[in-house]
Parts: sequence; structure tokens; C-alpha cells
Amino acid sequence: MKQKKGFASDNWSGVCPEAMQALNDVNPAHNEAYGELDDPVTEAAIEKFRQHFGDDIAVYFVYNGTAANVLGVGQLMRSYHAVVTAKTAHLNEDECAAPEKFVGCKILELEPDQGKIRPEQVEPFLRSIGFQHHAQPKVISISQVTEMGTVYRPEEIRALADFAHKNNMYLHMDGARIANAAVALDSGFKSFTVDAGVDVLSFGGTKNGLMFGEAVVFFGKEKARDFEYLRKQGMQLHSKMRYIAAQFDRYLTDDLWKKNASHANYMAQKLSDELSQFPQLTITQEVNANGVFCIMPPELIPQLQKEYFFHIWDAETNEVRLMCSWDTTDEDIAGFVSLIRERIQDYPGNELLV
Amino acid sequence: MKQKKGFASDNWSGVCPEAMQALNDVNPAHNEAYGELDDPVTEAAIEKFRQHFGDDIAVYFVYNGTAANVLGVGQLMRSYHAVVTAKTAHLNEDECAAPEKFVGCKILELEPDQGKIRPEQVEPFLRSIGFQHHAQPKVISISQVTEMGTVYRPEEIRALADFAHKNNMYLHMDGARIANAAVALDSGFKSFTVDAGVDVLSFGGTKNGLMFGEAVVFFGKEKARDFEYLRKQGMQLHSKMRYIAAQFDRYLTDDLWKKNASHANYMAQKLSDELSQFPQLTITQEVNANGVFCIMPPELIPQLQKEYFFHIWDAETNEVRLMCSWDTTDEDIAGFVSLIRERIQDYPGNELLV
Amino acid sequence: MKQKKGFASDNWSGVCPEAMQALNDVNPAHNEAYGELDDPVTEAAIEKFRQHFGDDIAVYFVYNGTAANVLGVGQLMRSYHAVVTAKTAHLNEDECAAPEKFVGCKILELEPDQGKIRPEQVEPFLRSIGFQHHAQPKVISISQVTEMGTVYRPEEIRALADFAHKNNMYLHMDGARIANAAVALDSGFKSFTVDAGVDVLSFGGTKNGLMFGEAVVFFGKEKARDFEYLRKQGMQLHSKMRYIAAQFDRYLTDDLWKKNASHANYMAQKLSDELSQFPQLTITQEVNANGVFCIMPPELIPQLQKEYFFHIWDAETNEVRLMCSWDTTDEDIAGFVSLIRERIQDYPGNELLV
Amino acid sequence: MKQKKGFASDNWSGVCPEAMQALNDVNPAHNEAYGELDDPVTEAAIEKFRQHFGDDIAVYFVYNGTAANVLGVGQLMRSYHAVVTAKTAHLNEDECAAPEKFVGCKILELEPDQGKIRPEQVEPFLRSIGFQHHAQPKVISISQVTEMGTVYRPEEIRALADFAHKNNMYLHMDGARIANAAVALDSGFKSFTVDAGVDVLSFGGTKNGLMFGEAVVFFGKEKARDFEYLRKQGMQLHSKMRYIAAQFDRYLTDDLWKKNASHANYMAQKLSDELSQFPQLTITQEVNANGVFCIMPPELIPQLQKEYFFHIWDAETNEVRLMCSWDTTDEDIAGFVSLIRERIQDYPGNELLV
Repeated sequence: MKQKKGFASDNWSGVCPEAMQALNDVNPAHNEAYGELDDPVTEAAIEKFRQHFGDDIAVYFVYNGTAANVLGVGQLMRSYHAVVTAKTAHLNEDECAAPEKFVGCKILELEPDQGKIRPEQVEPFLRSIGFQHHAQPKVISISQVTEMGTVYRPEEIRALADFAHKNNMYLHMDGARIANAAVALDSGFKSFTVDAGVDVLSFGGTKNGLMFGEAVVFFGKEKARDFEYLRKQGMQLHSKMRYIAAQFDRYLTDDLWKKNASHANYMAQKLSDELSQFPQLTITQEVNANGVFCIMPPELIPQLQKEYFFHIWDAETNEVRLMCSWDTTDEDIAGFVSLIRERIQDYPGNELLV
Repeated sequence: MKQKKGFASDNWSGVCPEAMQALNDVNPAHNEAYGELDDPVTEAAIEKFRQHFGDDIAVYFVYNGTAANVLGVGQLMRSYHAVVTAKTAHLNEDECAAPEKFVGCKILELEPDQGKIRPEQVEPFLRSIGFQHHAQPKVISISQVTEMGTVYRPEEIRALADFAHKNNMYLHMDGARIANAAVALDSGFKSFTVDAGVDVLSFGGTKNGLMFGEAVVFFGKEKARDFEYLRKQGMQLHSKMRYIAAQFDRYLTDDLWKKNASHANYMAQKLSDELSQFPQLTITQEVNANGVFCIMPPELIPQLQKEYFFHIWDAETNEVRLMCSWDTTDEDIAGFVSLIRERIQDYPGNELLV
Repeated sequence: MKQKKGFASDNWSGVCPEAMQALNDVNPAHNEAYGELDDPVTEAAIEKFRQHFGDDIAVYFVYNGTAANVLGVGQLMRSYHAVVTAKTAHLNEDECAAPEKFVGCKILELEPDQGKIRPEQVEPFLRSIGFQHHAQPKVISISQVTEMGTVYRPEEIRALADFAHKNNMYLHMDGARIANAAVALDSGFKSFTVDAGVDVLSFGGTKNGLMFGEAVVFFGKEKARDFEYLRKQGMQLHSKMRYIAAQFDRYLTDDLWKKNASHANYMAQKLSDELSQFPQLTITQEVNANGVFCIMPPELIPQLQKEYFFHIWDAETNEVRLMCSWDTTDEDIAGFVSLIRERIQDYPGNELLV
Repeated sequence: MKQKKGFASDNWSGVCPEAMQALNDVNPAHNEAYGELDDPVTEAAIEKFRQHFGDDIAVYFVYNGTAANVLGVGQLMRSYHAVVTAKTAHLNEDECAAPEKFVGCKILELEPDQGKIRPEQVEPFLRSIGFQHHAQPKVISISQVTEMGTVYRPEEIRALADFAHKNNMYLHMDGARIANAAVALDSGFKSFTVDAGVDVLSFGGTKNGLMFGEAVVFFGKEKARDFEYLRKQGMQLHSKMRYIAAQFDRYLTDDLWKKNASHANYMAQKLSDELSQFPQLTITQEVNANGVFCIMPPELIPQLQKEYFFHIWDAETNEVRLMCSWDTTDEDIAGFVSLIRERIQDYPGNELLV
């Protein structure tokens, strides 16, 4: 028997009906391949990005977040540069060394606090500037939402951007869950990206109801010079481009992104509230968006996973990650909580475990 | 006003109804991401490949043909190796140096005849073996269908494979249009791939009615050792893997691949037959599959392109490429031919041009 | 006026007379280039390595330590692998991302203790094995002498090698100062390299009296398969190979390496003893070889540097590095100590500073 | 018994006495490593380059010609660019794919005439500009002396430079034998490099009496921006930099370069004259510098090689390459010619062979 819908990741969910409809709608007839020759579908989608981010942007679609991150930072670097990011950043930990391979660069890790980094942590790396034996810091990369489910406030981003620019560096944002961040901040995308000084953004949608594709958005068109070649060489140029473009066009229309992300965030909050009632569980990170991090009694974990799959985040501390999605339901949460209630009685309060 | 459906490329066409239906069918509910944890959708698709190619294979889905080619040959090489291929090969000419970038290797070009290469052409490169100043030939790569619309016969492939293996090399096949080749050869896939000695195959579907995704198929599982890491590092691991897998599952069921390709090939033959009637036009390559190459009076070309777009293949000789697709109709061809008839009267016979 | 000979680095020293003589001796007449065609000079040098390390080795000369390290580990890795090393390792900090660029790999840092790492620190990275999102740990790299002037004991190396091999990994040793380590351990090279389980060694001499060149030594010839191509592609094949080979031949004859390194180590011990008399100075690392690490009153540093140049190691703690060389003299040390004595009176004891 | 001095390559010769003396002279005392801290030895050598090439240059020492070529062109390119060069260029054929590996770029080959290429041959590649599927031509690379022993006249170089610059490209010169070219042109270096529009030059000396090292010379300092990091990352930063610098300092003093190259060129001319007397031999390339290319009766070749080693250039046509050096003597040539005379009688005139 198939498992129930779990909390493994927001990319375990399917494609939301509106995005699927958009794919069906754009299907008939022939269409310019590769987004070339002023392909109207691609153009229309990019126009939507302009509505959200302003006119001085350049937008390129790629296949996934790995590529958006690697190519986005790669565009702004040469191989002897370094990108500074949180130890926990997807770019650092979960890309199987794709940045090192494609860009040839070094990644300099910072110990994050609640998934976030601060300018003063980057400062020591400035000493390497001009020293030919060291990779030269060139890009600061942050994730919004962070990998720990927290959200940078616009002023935190602005501080990082100002620091970067003052030191001849750039600020990159991994926006795999950018819609969830916007909802958390109760704002549009602009205030915490281009208006906060971000130079290049990986704009994702797959974790929020789309099928595939990610947009690399440069703030300041000149930063994107020749990026089409880097994309192609990075094996990221889709021939039937319209199928990525159409999804993003729809996603940025009628606040579809907001609808999906609001739901996911709301569900995470609800889940977090429910879990808080159990003294045996400890919520470890602020729940800003659609993820809940929680320390559980170790023996409980596999029992829950059997019915509602989720990932262990830190095997040493028994911290697990529970992700909500655009399609998480009240029943999913109720069922999960009820299962916890049933099984948790055997365990002492968490305070006794730590 | 929008152009009529033209002959630009088989990737200008949309997604065939069966593939689109498969995407809709696989959509509801949650599913294991990344094809991990024995994701049943991915497993089912791979099982279909086994039915076509036998059991000793390893199948990995990636996003597109560029990646399938680059990662497929890259798996079998180290950076100091070389891949030998036709000058016209997509791998050589149309990947914006993606193989050089990702693999670090050299591409050694051969002058093809009708898009094809022969073992004796590779022979001179064997002199480099053991000479430390030269990249070491390691992979021969052929395209089936070739970029010139021709199809290798199984014995031609076998000869290349035998030559490769005798010299401690591998044979790679770029099967972006492999279904069209199978139809042209009136056979299944096996006879001219694994049975002919191919080591790794890029199995494409996007040019034959699918939306995105390509399969890298290794013949001999051991050749695929650790390939999952190369795929991830190559930025080609799709999170919502089911949407690639489901397409290929359907594509390999009930001969959908054959239905689409048969239609495209048939239309190309029909188009070729029609064009042959004009003495001003010269068909330059054998029409084995779904492409027709033709030299046209240069002034005619833009007139036709305005209504039916297609690409100029060789600007020096005025050779154009006309691609048919799974959805090319009798009306498309009739309309195009009629337009040619209308405009071509002003031009002398082609023999006068050459 | 030119500075006095300082303590900046052992690579500020010149070429020892014996090595210079060897260069002059090998000069007349023509000689096979690239070490090819059984070049007798190169063969003779390699034979010397066999006398020190045993017969089942493969030796390749490259230009410098950066290359020896990068190519040595690169030979044993594919791009999706990771090398685990101390944060302070030259490979990690001082190669301007050369390993990332050339190998494409990730470097996983460990916090060293006195410059050294231990197997249990590597253990957590084993969790990444088999997880396709993470670079796969494949090589452990240590420096002998470490960047902090300390020396691994053979049993410490054996423990790392056993751990590596048990987990299908390799052990690499950066031996830029391997002669100083051998002297410190009062042994030949074999006991703490091949006999301790090291798989590949960067064998340096430039810091101990040679002009240029470094040897990559593989223990187990089969590990070096095709390495000549990697060396060439790594831009490290010297045409006039004899001038590297002749230096190493001489270096490994009549214990020249030992003579030079013994002197340097002895001078460092002497310097350390002298510095210990000043309560305002704190020796921070065990002095095992030819480097002395010392915390100084910050205002004192530039005063000393003006006459005897040396590098600040850690600007935050005012820790400086003082390197002795094969040609450091008693006068150098006496003069330096006397300068310290003269200037240090103005400063309180160091215990007041910390 | 050891072979006599042959004609294998100019890198089989030793170090000329003046260069060896310079190495001895610079040896005593300590010296700033890495050319850093205004190392006076490195500064002095660079000043010599300024005297030859003018003030607006940037000079960086690397280890060898492979590196000078790869890093020099790599500085002016991004990975999606292409370098256009002769099929016979060392950069293309004899670097074991080092450019592809380090730069990630494509090399576009041209069929040379007497080793040289012309602007009109590059023209067809301009069609790729702006086409995202193709690597973008960015650098034209020529060898001066060419690999076929011929020399570009300044106006030929100027034409290539003008073409390059008009099309937003750069001109690179591989000057492994630049001194031989200058002698052939009876000029200094300036007239056919910076004055002819060259952007970056690999300035070699190893084939003309030096031990190791090569200079990358940028014409226009701004083109060298950040090159020190590329050099370090390219594993080409020598610690004891003075030993490269001192050689070049001496080489560019009192016309040492000219003395050595004049001798080598003169000897090649003499050898060529001698060979011309044999009707069984055919000189195939103009003898402009220090190489002679010659078709020989195939059975004769190994007989000669046994006593005077040289390389077969083209095994299909029995064309051999005979290189003269700064230390080739009249006796070497007389002995070789005498051996030919002795053995050649058995062979018919070459006209009968072709």
C-alpha cells in the first residue's frame, strides 16, 4: 500500500492545476524553439517578470535550481573568485560540487545563525583580496527562504548587499522558495530583491506547484552580458522553451504564486502549532515559511516515517525537517498529529533527552 | 499575423496528446523526488527501457540532449581523452563547447559523408595513443539519425563499435532522433544499438512529441558506475523526476514512438518527392528519416521563410534544411509546395546555379 | 639598503651548492626532452626514489607543489569526489582554488589541532556516501610537515590511511617539507609514507635547497595509470626534464636532503629556545621541524619586519610565522634575537596581552 | 654508447653558458619569493621587457609554453568562447587538450599554408557570432615561428590583428621560438608583435638556451587585470621566481637571444643547403628559422635516426623535422650529411618516390 502524503519535501507534490492548465493551453501549434526569434511565449513570461521586478532586468530560463544558482553566480565570477555563503546553503552542501566543477571557484563557508549570515562574518575574507595565493571573494550568496526555513528581512539583505557592493562584490539570492518568503514578509518580490540590492536571483517555482524550470534574473541588464552562451554551455537551454515560459507566465499572473505559497506557509504554521503541544518535541528554528524543524525522540522517527515520510536533517541531534506544500491538507496534518499523539506517550519529555 | 506551421525543426512542434495525457495522469498525489527511494514512476519507465534494450542496462534521465551527450561520453572519459566525431555532429558544432567545458576533453573532427563517419577515418588518430602530448582518443560518437537526415545501417554501426572496442575505445550514439532511425530501418531499437555494439546512448524524445527530458542508456550496467553523481554535478537531476519518467513510460508503450516517427518520416518522404519535381531544387542528402536537405535559389529562400519558416543549413551553398514532425500535416506540405510553385517560376533550373 | 636575511619562508633561500653543481654537471650535451625515450637522467633520478621508497612506485616530475598536490589528488578522483583536509592545509587555503578548478571537486575542511587531523573527524562525512546530492569523499589529504610546523607520527598517519582504505578512500600527503619531517622523526622517508599506508605523495625539495620541480610519487604503480596525460594537460610537463631530475638525483644522494633539513630544523629549535626567554612572546605550536609560530606584541612586529622580514600568520591574534632554512646562520638568529631584546623592553609580558 | 647530438628538437639542447652563469649569479642570499614585495630580480627582468616592447605592457612569468599559451588566451576568454588557430598549432595539437580543460573553450581549426593562416580563413566562423548554440570566436592564435618552421611577415600579422580587432577578437602569438623569428625578420621583437597589433604573447626562451620559464606579455596593461590569480590557479606561480626572472634578464641583455637564435637559424640554413644537393630528398617548407622539413626515403630514416635522432613529422608522407639549436656545430651537420651521403646511394631520386 502506498504511503500517505508526507512532509518529505515541497518537491514531492505535483503540479498545481493552474500550471498544468497553462501547459495544456500552450501546447497546440508550432512555436519558436529555444526562446529564439522573439518567441512570443517566452517574451510574455519575461514581461511578467518585468511587472514584478521592474524594467532593467534580464531573465533567462533554465531547468532547475542547481543550474540557476551555478550559472547565476558563475556569470559574475571568474574561476579564481570565491563565493561566500552559509555552510548550510544548498549551493554549498547539496549540489554535489556543481559550482566548483562548472565555475572552478572556491566556496567559503560561514556558520549561519538560524540559516542566515551577516556582513561581519564575511569581513575576515576581505583580507584575501589582493593576495594571489587565495581565491578572491566576489559573490555573497544567500537563500531566501533559508535552508532552515527562516526568512531574511529586507534590511538584513540590504546590509549584505551594501557590504558586498562596497567591497566590489555581488549579492546572489537562491530563491528556490522565494514565493514562500514573499508571503512570510507580506510583500511582493521587489522589496527584498532588487530594492534591497540583490544582483542576481534564482527564481524558483518547482517547490511551489510548477513542473520544471527556474528563472535566472539579473538586476541590471548589463550583468547578463553573453549569459545565453553560458546557459547553453551549461546544458540548460531548453528547446521547447515555451513549456517553461508558460508556467512562469501563469505563476506570475493573478497571484498564483501567492495563493500556493500562502497555503503552504499557513499549513506549516498550523503544523508547528500542533507540534508545540507535545513536550517531547522541540521546534528548533523559527517557522517563517513552509518548513518546520523539530527535534524528536529518535525511536519515534521511523515509526512516523513509515506512514508520513520526512527527512532527518541532523542525525546527531535527531532534528527532522517537515515541509508543507501548496497541496498539504488539513487532513494530512490532523492524521500526522494524531499518529504522533498515539505513539509519543512512550517517550519522556524532550527536556529529559537533551 | 502568426506564421503557418513551418519546417524549422521537429522541436518547434508541441507535445503529442498521449504524452500530455501521461503528464496529467501522473500528476495527482505526492511522489518520491529525484527518482529516489525506488520511486515507482521512475522504476516503471526504466522497466520499459529494459523491455526494449534488455536487462543489462542502466538508465538515467536528464533534461536534454546536450546533457545526455555530454554526460554520456563524459562518464566514459577522463579529461585528457578525446572524442572522435563527424564535423557536423551536434556534439561538435551545436553545444557551445559544452563537452569541452564539462569533460575538459578534445573533440577530433572527421569530414563526414552524408553525415556519416567510417572506422578507417578514425584510424589516423590511433597514432596519438601513448603519445603524452596528444589527447587520447577514447570515444567515437555518431548521431543516429545523423544531422544530415541519414541513417546508419546496423552493420555500419557494428563496424564502428568493433573498431572502437578493438582499440580500447567506446561507441556513443546521439539518439536525439532515434525513433526516426528505427522507423527508417524498420526495426526496434535494439538491433542498431546494444546489438550493434553501442556502449552508451542518448535516447531522445523531445523531437518526437515529448515535452522535455532525455535518457542516458548505458549498455552494460558497470559502465554507469557513479553516474548519478555526474548527473547531479552536471546540474541535470530533476526533482520532480516523475514528469520525465512518465513521458518515457508512455512513449515506449503501445509503440507511441513509432507512430509519431513513422508519421514524421512519411511526411519528409512526401515532401522530398514533391520537391523533386522542381528542376530548380536539388535534394542533397538521402532522405532516410524526417529531414530533407535541399539547395534552393537564394532569392527564393526568404520568400518561403516568411510563410513557412525553416533554417538555412549552409549559407555558402544555399542548402536549406526542412524538418517534418509528428504533427506535420498534408496541408502543411501542400501549402508549402504550392507556395514554391507560385514563386519558383522566376528562377532558372538549379543546374545553372551550381 | 637591502634587508638582512629574514625568516619569511624557506623558499626565500637560494639553491644549495650541491644542487647548483648538479645543474651545471648535467648541462653539457643534448638530452632526451620530456623525460621520454628512456632519458637516462630522468631514469637515474627515479631509481633513487626506488631506493628510498621501494620498487612498486611511479614517479612523475612536475614544476611545483601546487601542481603536485592538485594532480596527485586529481589522479585518484573524479570531479564529483571530495577531498577532506585540514582547514589550514595549503591545498585548501593557498592554492587560489586550483584543486576546485582543475579537479572540479569539493574540499571538505576540518578544524585541525596543531595543524593535524584525525580519522574521527572525517567520520561525519561518510554519511554523504551514496547520497547523490553530496560530493563523495574520496581522498584524505595531510601535510607533513603541517602548515603549523608540526609533524605527524607514523602511527597517526597509519590510522588515517587505515580509515581511508576501509572506506574506499585514499590518503594523500603534501610533502613540501617532507625532509624536515623525516629529520624530525629521525627516520627515512619510507616509514611514514608507503609503510604507513600513504597512496600518493607530493615530494618537494624547493623549500629545502632546490631550484624548482616537485615529484608526484604513487605507491602502487597501478594508481598512476595514464598520469602522464594528466600531467601534460595540467601544463606540468617540462621539456628540459633533466634539470628537474638531476636536482632530485643529487638531493637523494649522500643524504643531501637530510643535511639541509637537519640544519633548518636545528636552527628553528635554536630560535625557539631563544624566543622562549622573552615573557612577552608565546610559542604557539610545537616546534617539530623548521618553523616557529609565536604570538608577539603587535607593535613589535613591524619593527622587527623592517630588518628581518617574516609573515604574520594570524592578524587577529598577532601570531607570526618564522621559518628557518638550509642556509639560516647562527648570526641570523643572534642578530634577530638581539633586535628583539633591544625593542621588546617597552612591552609588557605577553600574559598581560592575552 | 650514447648517440651523437641530433636534430630532434631545440629543447634537447642544454642551457647556454650565459644563462647558466646568470643562475649562479642570482643564487646567493635570500630573495623575495613569488616575485612579490617588489622583488628586485623580477622587477629588473620585467624592465628589460619594457625596453624591448614599450611601457604599456604587463609581464608574468610561468613555467612553460603550454601554460603561457593556455593562460594567455584564457585571460582574454570566457569558457563559451573559441580560439581560432591553425590545425598544426601547438595549442591545438600538442597540449593534450590543456586549453579545453583549463579554459573550457573550443578550438576551431584552420588548414594552414606553410604553417600560416590568413584572415579570410577566419571569416566563416564569424557567422557563429550571436548564435547561442555555437562557441563564440574570441581569439586568433598564431605561432611565430610556425610549427612548420616558417615566419609570418609583420604585415601578415597586422592583417590578422586588424581582422581580429574589427570583429571584437584578440590576437595571440605563441612565441616559443620568437627569437628565431626576429632573427629571420632581421628586426627586434617590437615590429611584429605590439606594433603589428598582437594582444598577448607567449615569450619563450627554453628552445633557445634557457632552462625553464616562459613570459606571458600583455600589450595594454589593462588586458592583464587579475592575471596573477589565473596564473596561481593555473599552478604556474613559481616560489623561487628569481630563477626564471634572472634567465630572462640575461637573455634580453647584450642580445643574447639574438646570438643564440642567429646561430641556430644559420645552422638550419646550412643544413638545408646541404640536403638540397641530394635528389632523393625534398625540402618541403621554406626554411625561415631553425627548422628544416624534408621528405626522405622511408628506409633511410631509421638508419639516420640511430646516430642522429630526429622526429618523423608526417608518417604518411615520410616528412621529417630537423631542428637546429644554439649549440648545433658545423661538425654535427657535416657528420649528418656525411652519413646521409653514405647511405643514400641505394635509394632512387625522390621524384621517383612521390
